Amino acid sequence: MSPRISADRLLADLAALAAFGGRLDGGVDRVAGSAADLAARDWLAGRIEDAGCLAWRDGIGNVFGRHPAGTGPWLLTGSHTDSVPGGGRLDGAYGVIAALEVLRTLREAGHPAALTLEIVSFWDEEGASPSSDGGLVGSTAFCAGDHISDIAAFVELHIEQGPRMEAAGLELGVVEGIVGIDRHTVTLTGETNHAGTTPMHGRADAARAAARVLVQVRDIAAAADPGMVANVGCVEVLPGAPNVIPGQARLVVEFRAATPAALETAAAGLRAHAALVAEEENCVALVEPLSSKPRSRFDPALCDLLEKVCKRLGAPFERMVSFAGHDAGVLSRHAPTAMVFVPSLAGVSHAPAEHTPDWQLTQGCQALLETVVSLAHREGESQ
Amino acid sequence: MSPRISADRLLADLAALAAFGGRLDGGVDRVAGSAADLAARDWLAGRIEDAGCLAWRDGIGNVFGRHPAGTGPWLLTGSHTDSVPGGGRLDGAYGVIAALEVLRTLREAGHPAALTLEIVSFWDEEGASPSSDGGLVGSTAFCAGDHISDIAAFVELHIEQGPRMEAAGLELGVVEGIVGIDRHTVTLTGETNHAGTTPMHGRADAARAAARVLVQVRDIAAAADPGMVANVGCVEVLPGAPNVIPGQARLVVEFRAATPAALETAAAGLRAHAALVAEEENCVALVEPLSSKPRSRFDPALCDLLEKVCKRLGAPFERMVSFAGHDAGVLSRHAPTAMVFVPSLAGVSHAPAEHTPDWQLTQGCQALLETVVSLAHREGESQ
Repeated sequence: MSPRISADRLLADLAALAAFGGRLDGGVDRVAGSAADLAARDWLAGRIEDAGCLAWRDGIGNVFGRHPAGTGPWLLTGSHTDSVPGGGRLDGAYGVIAALEVLRTLREAGHPAALTLEIVSFWDEEGASPSSDGGLVGSTAFCAGDHISDIAAFVELHIEQGPRMEAAGLELGVVEGIVGIDRHTVTLTGETNHAGTTPMHGRADAARAAARVLVQVRDIAAAADPGMVANVGCVEVLPGAPNVIPGQARLVVEFRAATPAALETAAAGLRAHAALVAEEENCVALVEPLSSKPRSRFDPALCDLLEKVCKRLGAPFERMVSFAGHDAGVLSRHAPTAMVFVPSLAGVSHAPAEHTPDWQLTQGCQALLETVVSLAHREGESQ
Repeated sequence: MSPRISADRLLADLAALAAFGGRLDGGVDRVAGSAADLAARDWLAGRIEDAGCLAWRDGIGNVFGRHPAGTGPWLLTGSHTDSVPGGGRLDGAYGVIAALEVLRTLREAGHPAALTLEIVSFWDEEGASPSSDGGLVGSTAFCAGDHISDIAAFVELHIEQGPRMEAAGLELGVVEGIVGIDRHTVTLTGETNHAGTTPMHGRADAARAAARVLVQVRDIAAAADPGMVANVGCVEVLPGAPNVIPGQARLVVEFRAATPAALETAAAGLRAHAALVAEEENCVALVEPLSSKPRSRFDPALCDLLEKVCKRLGAPFERMVSFAGHDAGVLSRHAPTAMVFVPSLAGVSHAPAEHTPDWQLTQGCQALLETVVSLAHREGESQ
């Protein structure tokens, strides 16, 4: 029988952390590097020490905690405490406070798993500051350093940030990996002209061509993989006057899929459709890769272990893929890694209304503790 | 037999005017109120005086010229000498220099039509300066003043600014009116959300909804009136990040048609289609009128007179409607008005490459002279 985490202490610390950069609407403004973010990191280090543990930081700003008598190799768990502007109180924060609660529960219980457990709040996961290097900054720096060689495994507990679990009645998710994310720019070039005097049939209207491509993106993605998603979040039309036929239009198309094959099929579909539309609209289409973040595949044995924990807790769960990026994606390239999800009500995230019921937060934290105990047991057996 | 205008003098003065704000690429930067525009107006007044005529200005900056012995009521002809930034050397300028050439030709010939002819360069037709009151400023002020009551008729000679005449092999156009121009904003409101974690079927993607509306605009216009034109020149998608499903999108749709009924039918079609698309895309559509410039109908008797002149010159011509706005539209609400068009090569206008062959410019100027002579004759008979 594993020790039980304290729901009250977990929830109280979540509330305390939410006060750093806290907004009247319940959300948080705690962008990495802001005064609120730095104060929250100081507070976290203090809470680690309050629990009789050692707090330390590395050069980039990641905050760590461990048992004073602990030794590696470490089972690392945690997430991040920075937020997007106007973000929610759980994204990242939940995984960090749950890790703290697991560490202090195990330490208080004198459980041996406490001795090989390390917790972390990574620096700048969100990449929300204009000066950020695109997010995942702390975990990336961590994996480039020496300490990663002492990490036996990494587990990240996080809210789902989508509606799938709630819709399916799930309480826990065993995350097997993170989708790959490919972005493309689609530039349609037509001919800027007078919107009154140019006959309709002679136009090379780049906005019309771009709109036709945009409308097709959903079908292009579905044809490549019914489980993947696609978005056109940026649309630019030039020169942008009511009485001028647009001579240029630019879209940023983002595809997310579990397999590289699906991403490649979608990109090929996008190129083919853009070329077809451009020809019909007297325009020229240019589809260029903008960025590509490869998928992350988590550790199968670790996922099996998480599945056993879920079963033991009797919680409805499923194996799933994450459609959002996480520090775990970075860690998975250097150490056995997996994630656990709890539901996000209505799928709301990166917004003040982000919410998960307290009992589900508590159950997720207990699942993390059981995972840490099982892993410590497994590591102990294998040594 | 009417006097013949001097092609050399006409073309030389067109070249001289093009030097004010002249660009290396052959275009002109002569935005109303700029140093180049003011210098060009001084030069024009000087050229009027060089021709032995009187030059004068009104309070807003319109430049006028007339025979020193002339008396009203006046037949007014002219256009504007301001340009858009990077505009062409003919838009407006042609109508002003041609008017000057007609006045001096008639005066030199001692023709009685010179005595009732007044020429004008209106102030700020283009409205290209940020501080402009939207263009047509000089003609609007003129029509609000006292002098308009002395104007028996107004004729404006202008380049077509579109490709229709060249395509149809026409040399002159008898313009019967200017299209009405209605602008609408279409705002689609969906729900901003995470582009990864939100399943495709649950999205309320405002950009997709807006793109579907945009693609349909051409058919909506064609169904209302096959001769009308439509443009979507402004597209805004918010918040505008690759990984965020757009929660709002805004289009500016412009319709131009010869009749109010066509504009109303197109607006109704736009509203109906936006509502339909919004419902299918889980969005809300709001179609609001942004601006409405009523059509201008020119004087039928004056158009008949222009048609006779075209026939007498043996030039291929047609009656047509202007899809661009002109000072003549303003004047037509206060005095019998009509316009004459000459072709624009490839329809290029508001650009340095704006061009009309010299012989067509010369023929257009001669047509203006014949019109002035015929009108003076008609007015003389009617008195």
